[in-house]
Amino acid sequence: MPRTDDPRVLVDHATGDDAGVYRLDDRTALVQTVDFFTPVVDDPYAYGGIAAANALSDVFAMGGRPLTALSIAAFPERDFPAEWARAIVRGGRDKLAEAGCVLLGGHSVRDPEIKFGYAVTGLVDPERMFTNAQGRPGEVLVLTKPLGTGVVATALKAGRAPTAAVEAATRAMSALNAAAAESARRHRVRCATDVTGFGLVGHGLNIARESALTLEIDSSALPLLPGAADLAPTSASGGLHANRRQFEGSVHWPRALSPGTDALLFDPQTSGGLLLLVPEEEAPALLEDLPGAARIGRALPRGEAPIVVI
Amino acid sequence: MPRTDDPRVLVDHATGDDAGVYRLDDRTALVQTVDFFTPVVDDPYAYGGIAAANALSDVFAMGGRPLTALSIAAFPERDFPAEWARAIVRGGRDKLAEAGCVLLGGHSVRDPEIKFGYAVTGLVDPERMFTNAQGRPGEVLVLTKPLGTGVVATALKAGRAPTAAVEAATRAMSALNAAAAESARRHRVRCATDVTGFGLVGHGLNIARESALTLEIDSSALPLLPGAADLAPTSASGGLHANRRQFEGSVHWPRALSPGTDALLFDPQTSGGLLLLVPEEEAPALLEDLPGAARIGRALPRGEAPIVVI
Repeated sequence: MPRTDDPRVLVDHATGDDAGVYRLDDRTALVQTVDFFTPVVDDPYAYGGIAAANALSDVFAMGGRPLTALSIAAFPERDFPAEWARAIVRGGRDKLAEAGCVLLGGHSVRDPEIKFGYAVTGLVDPERMFTNAQGRPGEVLVLTKPLGTGVVATALKAGRAPTAAVEAATRAMSALNAAAAESARRHRVRCATDVTGFGLVGHGLNIARESALTLEIDSSALPLLPGAADLAPTSASGGLHANRRQFEGSVHWPRALSPGTDALLFDPQTSGGLLLLVPEEEAPALLEDLPGAARIGRALPRGEAPIVVI
Repeated sequence: MPRTDDPRVLVDHATGDDAGVYRLDDRTALVQTVDFFTPVVDDPYAYGGIAAANALSDVFAMGGRPLTALSIAAFPERDFPAEWARAIVRGGRDKLAEAGCVLLGGHSVRDPEIKFGYAVTGLVDPERMFTNAQGRPGEVLVLTKPLGTGVVATALKAGRAPTAAVEAATRAMSALNAAAAESARRHRVRCATDVTGFGLVGHGLNIARESALTLEIDSSALPLLPGAADLAPTSASGGLHANRRQFEGSVHWPRALSPGTDALLFDPQTSGGLLLLVPEEEAPALLEDLPGAARIGRALPRGEAPIVVI
């Protein structure tokens, strides 16, 4: 339940959902989110596009359709060529346009540390939106993008990421979750989240808690970025360690996993995939719609641990 | 005209307006804005409230009613007590509540430099919204808050602002422009802006350009914060000098002004007042509604200079 007693607020931060939802009338609600971050890749145009795809993703994760965006830019005054700023802004604008989302305004400040992102507003039918609380036992877990953007970005900063890994991570982070949300709507999904800063386990826990489920994750079925499992043991970010500390007590591991796979369960993702709970009978058709998506487990009635990794 | 050819975009940044406007249907449009900034006062609770009042003001300046807000927070990891963060957030939340605006979410990052603000969404009737382009000759210029928040904040940082000046500036910046917008709607205002970073002259120029008017400003009628005129010659911010350089060529001064008053015309305001163009016959009643507001001049058919200061 939202923290406010205003009946127009259908979703706020209290449920760990991806965006806030505010009812305008019986069939229409605003779905709103804001996110911005420091560069995760070296190419400024790609960075702008990733920032847009990431912010838009929270709207898609609620089953909404994005309408408008406001940009948030913090660019350095020195040693920051004007063409980098233009490339970041252009990358973001092109990605918004791909999503049918209009750039309505924005705010920029001078800041020694580059940051870029968006506040995004979409519309959603309140009767059909996806939330963390509407998962049911028996549903299939589907993840729509490979894991590992955090370890690849960390390895890139340390100068030890193979080019192929960076290219694959950039492609994954740049990809919109629009088609995944569209297919999910068509295939009767009611419960979804996008996998971002808290990693697969952290965001999965929000669903397990709010839907009173145990999520059983098949570690052998996880889609991973090329190179990510090899990089994980040496390129774990501070965020990965923090996620592990915060969440590993809620996870049951019947058997040991390889260190790489284990780490990637906690890896903070930028512009990660949607984690969808799909009715069993709809799963094959949904997976056919989404070539990059993988069936990674199932939802069970709530057992002892909220997350079980097999 | 907006820069995009999307007919749903009624206002974007191309007209210097305070917020973007996106049509949902014939009678309803979203009005959206984002703003955040470093502290302008020492009291964290007051800073949070000012950040909220300032962001909400862009919605009021378009004649809209705010609905939802997303917070944007950059707080330092070190030497920043947790109670300061809580006070900033609480100050903002209380001010949003005063405006009937719901906090729907937000994003925070660690940053050595404190920054705080909001993305705000409101609704406006597109047929009745205020824009920079709808001013008419003969209308009266009304400013709803005193000028000088920039020089007082600069003096405060230098340790030379009298307490009374800081208190008056804090009260002015904390005040919502809600009542001013409500009275403006009632008294047939169609053209308005809020006075913020570009100062009275900079924002006035947007109106003069878009409405093809000359704004005649009576310097003796300007409401000034106590102490502001005295502080101005020694406490001009970089922003004030930049505004003067950019805008003074567009201003005609038939006679010399005192150095303090001259500077305050260019002083960047935080959470400044609304500059309203009011039909002559409505002005007395509007001024009676708003005790802090002042009649500061009139709109004339476009003459040689877009702004004339008498």
